[in-house]
Amino acid sequence: MKIGLDIMGGDYAPDAVIEGAVDALVQLASDDRLVLIGDNRRIREKLSSMGAEPSRFEIVPTTQVIEMSDHPAKAFSQKRDSSIAVGFGMLKSGMIDGFASAGNTGAMLVGASYTVNVIPGVFRPALVALIPNLDGRNSVILDVGINPDCKPDVLLQYGILGSVYAKYVLGIEKPEVGLLNIGTEESKGSAAVKASYELLRESPEVNFRGNIEGHDLFTHDMTDVIVCDGFVGNVVLKMAERFYGIAKTRGINDTFFDRLNFEVVGGTPVVGINENVVVGHGISNRKAIMNMILQTRDVVHADLARKIKEAVGG
Amino acid sequence: MKIGLDIMGGDYAPDAVIEGAVDALVQLASDDRLVLIGDNRRIREKLSSMGAEPSRFEIVPTTQVIEMSDHPAKAFSQKRDSSIAVGFGMLKSGMIDGFASAGNTGAMLVGASYTVNVIPGVFRPALVALIPNLDGRNSVILDVGINPDCKPDVLLQYGILGSVYAKYVLGIEKPEVGLLNIGTEESKGSAAVKASYELLRESPEVNFRGNIEGHDLFTHDMTDVIVCDGFVGNVVLKMAERFYGIAKTRGINDTFFDRLNFEVVGGTPVVGINENVVVGHGISNRKAIMNMILQTRDVVHADLARKIKEAVGG
Repeated sequence: MKIGLDIMGGDYAPDAVIEGAVDALVQLASDDRLVLIGDNRRIREKLSSMGAEPSRFEIVPTTQVIEMSDHPAKAFSQKRDSSIAVGFGMLKSGMIDGFASAGNTGAMLVGASYTVNVIPGVFRPALVALIPNLDGRNSVILDVGINPDCKPDVLLQYGILGSVYAKYVLGIEKPEVGLLNIGTEESKGSAAVKASYELLRESPEVNFRGNIEGHDLFTHDMTDVIVCDGFVGNVVLKMAERFYGIAKTRGINDTFFDRLNFEVVGGTPVVGINENVVVGHGISNRKAIMNMILQTRDVVHADLARKIKEAVGG
Repeated sequence: MKIGLDIMGGDYAPDAVIEGAVDALVQLASDDRLVLIGDNRRIREKLSSMGAEPSRFEIVPTTQVIEMSDHPAKAFSQKRDSSIAVGFGMLKSGMIDGFASAGNTGAMLVGASYTVNVIPGVFRPALVALIPNLDGRNSVILDVGINPDCKPDVLLQYGILGSVYAKYVLGIEKPEVGLLNIGTEESKGSAAVKASYELLRESPEVNFRGNIEGHDLFTHDMTDVIVCDGFVGNVVLKMAERFYGIAKTRGINDTFFDRLNFEVVGGTPVVGINENVVVGHGISNRKAIMNMILQTRDVVHADLARKIKEAVGG
């Protein structure tokens, strides 16, 4: 299995990315390979300075960089030798089994939609995040940022995509699905959410439990899969991250709050596309990069993109 | 100044409500009066058992109760001698200056909209909540539950209503307004939020700073007023409450987390209607009721409903 890593993406690239790759390598199985995509000279210099053996990686040299401030679609089409464009090319041609980057999220989504393409039958891809439960488990929440406006059929499908993720990546046999809402009653919520409640309830493809509310998150009342539009999901995710920061600010050391630290989570998989792609936080440090790579490994080992294809395409 | 209190509303009514009223009374000015609306016998028995002097209150006897499970509009129109219906009648006729209840929220909103009525020029009333800042101050967030779908002009007006609240109730001279969104750029967000960004930016009536994100909440990056639809606002509020519970569960005693406890906040004012109304949490205990009354006092002292009328109606 080969994981492609964009060495040039992220606020602390390339150093922190290479450091994270070195840390991740020791945790990968011996037949898992890391493909470092980026500036050849800088990669080799950094590996050398770390005393790491370049032969343990594959290195794919590129000459261009899509900056965080670049216009995603324009940069993706114009910088054909950028690490992101090259990574998606390798992914599409099967040279790597998964691709991870902490670079320009917009460019990653352009690559996801226009190079590897959306799976036929998927209305809109989604970004998936994990929400820690006090009981030690994790739940899957989607979408957390791609689609701020979601039609009911899109929300229903997120229930299906999230269930596939929970089953194959987290190993939950029959994941319960909840609809994030502002009350427990069926009649609550926005027009789109109310309509999606009915679709979820009637669908034989999801194990729907009903609405869950903001105070159900993190607790035993939380479902395995939490369906919401990318607006509210993004606010939930960023607010949870803030509580990690608040705990640190207040001098609180607690293993639950530590699980809200994005560094521990690593990245956000894109689901609904033909290949396995994970997008990292722009501010990813060494530890976050390492965890992004391990998460990509889990997604690739679960064969997630193909499992979703089977669930949606039949 | 007279505050009407629904003695029959809430999961622990009437005992916890009466207890909270007794606690609040000692914190009110000598010319502030509490009007207890509910079952006369139970009020007198409870006051007696607490050794509290009935003459320090006004008691308005009612014979009916709108239950938490009652259909709001139906119960409000049929139970004319319920504490909620009587309270709104007194409010409309000027016999009380504010009305607070931890009872059936739907019935409270029916009374707000159809008895005291929406202020001419207000598109939709909103529920206002406070979000604590780590620096000790509070911000105002609205809507937190009435309107899950908000058009751009409604969101703009929430900026105005929230500014009036922040100025007159919290004493912030020129409140900064932020739009809760999923990125800092103007181009981010749902269609409604993007359009409201433009309206807020162009409005001379609000001091608009731009978008704020989930991780800006609680920090110095948070604006004095946070504008959002009632869906995301409700999720934010309930999720914040959950973090109080998580802190308790984890054995964390911290003054910041304590401020996320709804008992401390008390209630949620309804803004955009002709009178001052505060809705409490159904699970309000003695302390929460006390704080709901004190919050109602603050809103009445600020003459909030009239200030909003002036801001909107001109």
